[in-house]
Amino acid sequence: MAVTVVGSIAFDRVETHTDQREKLLGGSAVHFSLASSFFAETRVVGPVGDDFGEDEYDVLHGRGVITDDIEHVPGGKTFFWAGRYERDVNIRHTLQTDLNVFEDFEPKLSDAARAAEVLFLANIHPDLQRRVREECSGARFTALDSMNLWIDITRDSLVEAIRMVDCVILNESEIRMLVDEPNLVRAARALLEMGPSVVVAKQGEHGSALFTPEGFFALPAYPTPDVVDPTGAGDTFDGGFVGYIAAHADEEIEAPLLRRAMAYGTALASYNVEAFGTERMLDLTGSEVADRVSELGRLTRFDDVPIALRA
Amino acid sequence: MAVTVVGSIAFDRVETHTDQREKLLGGSAVHFSLASSFFAETRVVGPVGDDFGEDEYDVLHGRGVITDDIEHVPGGKTFFWAGRYERDVNIRHTLQTDLNVFEDFEPKLSDAARAAEVLFLANIHPDLQRRVREECSGARFTALDSMNLWIDITRDSLVEAIRMVDCVILNESEIRMLVDEPNLVRAARALLEMGPSVVVAKQGEHGSALFTPEGFFALPAYPTPDVVDPTGAGDTFDGGFVGYIAAHADEEIEAPLLRRAMAYGTALASYNVEAFGTERMLDLTGSEVADRVSELGRLTRFDDVPIALRA
Repeated sequence: MAVTVVGSIAFDRVETHTDQREKLLGGSAVHFSLASSFFAETRVVGPVGDDFGEDEYDVLHGRGVITDDIEHVPGGKTFFWAGRYERDVNIRHTLQTDLNVFEDFEPKLSDAARAAEVLFLANIHPDLQRRVREECSGARFTALDSMNLWIDITRDSLVEAIRMVDCVILNESEIRMLVDEPNLVRAARALLEMGPSVVVAKQGEHGSALFTPEGFFALPAYPTPDVVDPTGAGDTFDGGFVGYIAAHADEEIEAPLLRRAMAYGTALASYNVEAFGTERMLDLTGSEVADRVSELGRLTRFDDVPIALRA
Repeated sequence: MAVTVVGSIAFDRVETHTDQREKLLGGSAVHFSLASSFFAETRVVGPVGDDFGEDEYDVLHGRGVITDDIEHVPGGKTFFWAGRYERDVNIRHTLQTDLNVFEDFEPKLSDAARAAEVLFLANIHPDLQRRVREECSGARFTALDSMNLWIDITRDSLVEAIRMVDCVILNESEIRMLVDEPNLVRAARALLEMGPSVVVAKQGEHGSALFTPEGFFALPAYPTPDVVDPTGAGDTFDGGFVGYIAAHADEEIEAPLLRRAMAYGTALASYNVEAFGTERMLDLTGSEVADRVSELGRLTRFDDVPIALRA
């Protein structure tokens, strides 16, 4: 099934402990679509400025991403973000955020974008997420991501958006913050009570956890010794997870499918952090992805052997 | 095989967001032995004062723990710790630490304690860990835990102790700190290079990770919605992990056994946090432990289905 993703398209400047890059292609919709494209036809809705050119389109087209719905704002500049990671890459400092054309973004969906069976609302203002969700009233599976900013300044609108989707994917700290509940199990259950049937908590280097009304699943991150640039890992996870579901939406969207989707999201995110920006995604092959999913299966499995315990 | 554990025996005062307890039985050797006792004959070596009486011995005897090597220091008081957990139980404040008889503790092992095939050096001064390790020269499997204090003030001695054991079990933050390496995979590998063949990183609510020269395994924590008192969870994990290995030391101490041991440690720790102090361990049954291990297997398994990816 086809996927439409609405979100940011950006240029990033990234500094790490040992290196830096000036003008990396980034943004939530870009990272999402490069991952999703491994599984499903993916269409990006988002704004760019005059500085967004053939090189950037080539990256997206190289993975078969459909860019017809990318809106070019004449005279504008593309969203720009600069950040610095400490030697401990879990610690990130935002150095600069220039919204540019993203500031007045009003998503305009083509008929084809509106007709996608799977809709992903990447991290944008929840008012916009709700408007797009209403436009795509025929979607069979809808999911959203968000960030602490929207929880802080427009929580009510975000809660409304959450009521309108099947699946919420957030960092675990955002889930706790959103419902003011430090226990993640309780917090995720509170989110499920708002309406979605699937809640995914992203836990960075600790992996991710899946909550549904029926159950729970958790998967560690792939143990990567060389994290070069974590930017976009979360969006890449989203793309792998949602893309996998889109490719299997003829199945029931239940635990077995959702668990496999988590593994593909995890595998893709683990590749994404191995190089700056989208670099690693460009030469990544389907068999590398499949291999890492198999490896994740082996790294997380234990075979219980019934024993007599001293009671 | 029999287990000897050397560590602290304590009274704890614990305050949580909603409740508090004045004089809970605690200490690393106590929590360890109550868990280990599900699998193997366990002998505790540690000091107590005049305030340690029949009620406390009854708790240990209730689970078959051998207390012959508990050293009663006449006129002394038992180690006392007081702490407060915030509403987010991941945040703990130590309010008071009275070492009391623990301050001048010099482990004295009986012949029987010294003859144990499995030795666990709970969190005590690494000089003492080394001395005990040397005394138990015939042990077939040895492991230690430690804490940030010893890394801070006597790192060299701790490194020496680590060189002398088969297995190191630490919080992930301690592993990073010990070798000054923020990436956990790299940090654990550095520890393995010091000598041990097994490194376990405890990750609190995120579970635990196992590193050996050959491979990696990770297991999430059991998703507990009602954490009452996390005190002793780490020591309980240690006891389940090491105890399980002791009960199967006729097998090769390799990945399949170590992974199952992680599951038993995780299950026991998850029960321990369901009530204050050692309360939950007292009525815990072997079949409850086995059930939770089975459940952990179900909560962590995904079945990969090979698919054709869009290359």
